[in-house]
Order: sequence, then structure tokens, then C-alpha cells
Amino acid sequence: MVSRIQRILGDRTVGDDTAYIPWGRDYLLATTDATTIRTHYPWHSPEAWGWYVAAVNLSDIAAKGGQPLGLLLALLLPRETDTSTVAGIMRGARKCCARYGTKVVGGDTKEGLDICLVGSAFGRVPKNEFMPRSGAMPGDILALTGSVGAAAAGFLALKEGVTGRGLRGEERRLLLPIPRVFEGRAAARTKAVHACTDLSDGLSASVHQLCQPSGVGAVIVWEAVPVSGALKKRGKADEQWAFHFGGDFELLLAIPPARFERVRCAIERTGTDFCAIGRVVEGSNVELMGRGWRRPLKYGGWEHFRGSG
Amino acid sequence: MVSRIQRILGDRTVGDDTAYIPWGRDYLLATTDATTIRTHYPWHSPEAWGWYVAAVNLSDIAAKGGQPLGLLLALLLPRETDTSTVAGIMRGARKCCARYGTKVVGGDTKEGLDICLVGSAFGRVPKNEFMPRSGAMPGDILALTGSVGAAAAGFLALKEGVTGRGLRGEERRLLLPIPRVFEGRAAARTKAVHACTDLSDGLSASVHQLCQPSGVGAVIVWEAVPVSGALKKRGKADEQWAFHFGGDFELLLAIPPARFERVRCAIERTGTDFCAIGRVVEGSNVELMGRGWRRPLKYGGWEHFRGSG
Repeated sequence: MVSRIQRILGDRTVGDDTAYIPWGRDYLLATTDATTIRTHYPWHSPEAWGWYVAAVNLSDIAAKGGQPLGLLLALLLPRETDTSTVAGIMRGARKCCARYGTKVVGGDTKEGLDICLVGSAFGRVPKNEFMPRSGAMPGDILALTGSVGAAAAGFLALKEGVTGRGLRGEERRLLLPIPRVFEGRAAARTKAVHACTDLSDGLSASVHQLCQPSGVGAVIVWEAVPVSGALKKRGKADEQWAFHFGGDFELLLAIPPARFERVRCAIERTGTDFCAIGRVVEGSNVELMGRGWRRPLKYGGWEHFRGSG
Repeated sequence: MVSRIQRILGDRTVGDDTAYIPWGRDYLLATTDATTIRTHYPWHSPEAWGWYVAAVNLSDIAAKGGQPLGLLLALLLPRETDTSTVAGIMRGARKCCARYGTKVVGGDTKEGLDICLVGSAFGRVPKNEFMPRSGAMPGDILALTGSVGAAAAGFLALKEGVTGRGLRGEERRLLLPIPRVFEGRAAARTKAVHACTDLSDGLSASVHQLCQPSGVGAVIVWEAVPVSGALKKRGKADEQWAFHFGGDFELLLAIPPARFERVRCAIERTGTDFCAIGRVVEGSNVELMGRGWRRPLKYGGWEHFRGSG
């Protein structure tokens, strides 16, 4: 749907990527994300819905290296929605914003047939610190904050009948994702990052989304990718669940080798692990490599996985 | 609903008013407005829906004296929505933005049960040109761009069976409202405006919305209020249709008398009429005055009118 809209608009600035608008020495960053509760994890509590919509928008600002400046939250609610639901949504959004140094600055409420939350976040980044999605160069190290698979583990737990409130540890990130705002700012301040994106649609989709606009390929090393302990414990630390599920909202960065250590130190000072998982290569092939094997890494993400699984 | 959310958030910056966030010598302005097509004029064409959601958001930026910097547009669409509907919506939003010196810079599309368009606009205004909603002082002149009642005339025409495409002249503003972006900037540049709001909910509601946060009252002179020729032609140039219907998106300003001419000249240079319609007074009473009569001007707006009519 996004590419259809892009075609209609004939404008590459429109899409699922964050807009950046020159403002003196800075860019104003702006992004919007709609979440329909009916299709997005009906197990959520209203507070988790509010956190979720705030987090996914802040994650988009983080991937550009931006400092969030505020969140607008439009609520579409059925007529029968009670006050405690609205209060829960707003409390969750407010908590998430406060955790990452910003706040809910405005909103709108209208009647709708189902519950839908539309967040719009904006932020600020100095032009020379801005991290584009395109810009990866052959030879760059691809590196990842945190690990992949925590959200997948949460999803598997829910499928087994665990309730949203019953999720433990990293599995909770399915409902309460962590936007990497501090990590994104820390990386941006080094001015050493060639390209960055967040992992909303899964690692495999994100590697493709980073490589395609940069006109490069990539090799990901299977053993190098940190997989969430929660997913390992479930015995599902395989390519489908760890690489295609999505919902982890980690940051994927392309960094020239000579500057990798500087970026790693900056990010690890925020308390988050950061590790190299592969390299950017010439061409357009995106591959996954293990000991003695090498095969294409499918641009799948969750949508593809669902279709084929 | 808005005041309930404000209460929950305990924050006066949240509500239907535009947020303003300090950024060096400027404010970043940000606002969001959701329009559900099912409840908002189903006679619209998709292109008019797109124009409408862009215009109402740009009007909020205009009322603060801001230069719009971009519009984000989230679309919630039923699964069966066809490409031409999406294309029409985007074309309308893009046309409106282009007309007022900005563009659609981002978006999101999700499946929903009914068609809902959520726009978020942002803009920039120097701090010393910012026009707050509160700030009116006793003695200020209340003045209005354009006239009231054009949207009401359009509504009456639709009720008589005229189609959206059949609307003529000023009546078209019901579907294709004009955000007063140039007028707002012109007024702001004079640095002479004490307070400003747009007329989305009708003149009577807007006078109250301007007076209440300023802690003042007002007297509006019935004969001084310019009523749209289209509404006069329909013989409905009365208080209910001209003052309570809404949808006109004109600007209402409070200006100290000594500076009124300067503001009037600035606004009229944009080609739009600007005329005094009353005064700000001490106290909290908002009154309407004619020749030989004077009575309270109800805080009603369209919602109240509908309830009592």
C-alpha cells in the first residue's frame, strides 16, 4: 500500500520512512504510525496500546538519530468506549514518552467503528548527525543493538495461552517495545554512521530496506546474530522466528570499519549491547552465511512468513 | 472528550489546540486532526476528503501565525477500498498543501472498518510572532477574516439535494475549506496580535474559546459581522446558521485598538477582507448586541445547535 501511495505522489519522501525537513543547522524529523487494535494484538491492555503506539513512533525518530520533541495522539474510539480505556491508553503513551525524554503534546478524539490509535512523533537532529536509511557503502560493518527474537518469544507465549499480563522478561517487548532513543542519539553523535533503520518488520526485511536504497548487498553471519534468550529457551531460535517475525525495534547500522569501535563504545555506554552481524558488499545480493553454507536471505519479514507458514 | 483527556493528562498543552515547542528563536507548531468519512459529509469526493483533512490541519497552524512545514497523512481504509479512492485522497491533500506552500511529507496506511483520515501538520513561527489563543485584553478589538456562513450555505444546499460537485461559489467551502495560512502569517508578522483562533466550530464557539482562557468577556455587534452572500441568498443569515454552524475556518483575532489598522492593512494585502466585529471587555460575559438589544451569545457551536435543533 505504501509503494502505491508513493507512486501516486511521485515523491520518495513519502512512505514508511521518517520525513526530514531542513531547519537551520538541524533537520525536523516527522513520522506517523497508525495502529488498529483489532488487528494488532488484541491481548493488549489499553495501557500497553498507548505505550505501543508511542514506542513505534519514537523508534522511527531514534533510527534517524533524533531527539524526540513530542508525540501527537489521535484516538478513534467506538461510542461505547469507557473512560478507563481512554485513561489507560493515555497513561501508557505518557509513560513511554516520559521514559524517553518527551511527552504527549496534543491530540484529537473522534468516533470510529473500531479502536485505532494514530501517533505522530517529531524530533530534531543536527544535519551532520542525521542517519539516513540509504548511505551504506561496500565494506561497512552491519551491526545491531540488543538482540532479535524477544517479540517472537512473546508471540509464541501468547499462542500457548499466556495472557498479556503473564508475559515475563524479554517476552514483554512484544507488547511494550523499547524504542532505542538513547542508543540512536549516541550513535548519531559519533557522526560515523553511514545508514540506519529500525527493525520493526524483522531483521531480514530491515537488511533489505537498508541495502536497496543504498544500491548495495550484504552478507549476514548466522552465528554472529544475537538471539534473545527467551526465544532460545522456547527452542525456536531459527531463521523464521528470529529473522522474519519482527516487532523487536532494535537499530541496524552500517558503519565504516575504522569507526566501528567508536560507535560501539558510544552505544554500549547507554547500557545496551551492540554487535557486528555482517558486512555490506557490492552488488545487490543479500545473503545469510553459516559454517560451510551460504544462501539468499529472503526479503520476507512477518508478512511473507505468515503467507508461507 | 477532549477535556476528559486533558484531565487525565493533567496538562493544558493537550487538547484541540496546537502544541508549540521551543526551538531556538522559534516555536515548532504541531497539531493533529482525525476525520471519519462516515460522519463527515459522506457527499465528499475522495479528493475533497483529502483537501479537507489537509485544510483543517493547516488552519490550526495558520491560527498560530505559523508557516506550515509539512503534513503527515495516516489513512485507515477498509480492505475493499480501490486504488482510485486512495489516489483521490492523496491528490486532494497534495493540492491543498501545494496551494499553501507545503507538502505531504509522510504517511501510513492501515486497514480499518471505515475510512478515516488522520492528518498531522507542523509549522514554524518566530517566538515574537506567535499568536496564542489566550492573551486577549479588555479593550482589544475582535476582528474576523472573510465572512461567516459559507459552509452553512453549502450544507443547506446539500440538504436540498444538490450534490457535492453541484455546489457553487462560496458554498464549496463546506467541502473545500480555505485555511487562512497567508492571512495568519501576515497578521503574525505585525507582532501586534494579542490572541487568535480559527473558526472551525463556528463563530460563537470561537469567541468563547478565545475569551475563556484569557479571562475576559466580549461584546459582538450583530450588524458588524460579515455574513456570506451565499447564506443571505438562502434567507438564512440568522444567528444559528451564521454563528453556530461552523466549518468556515476563518481567523478571529484580538488586537489592541492602536495597532488594528496595521494588522488590517497586512491582512488585506493578501486579498482577504478583514473587519472588526466587536470588543473584548472585562468580566466573563460574552454578549451579542444589536440596535436596541443585547443578550448572551451562547457557547453552542454546531454540536449544541444540532442538539437543540
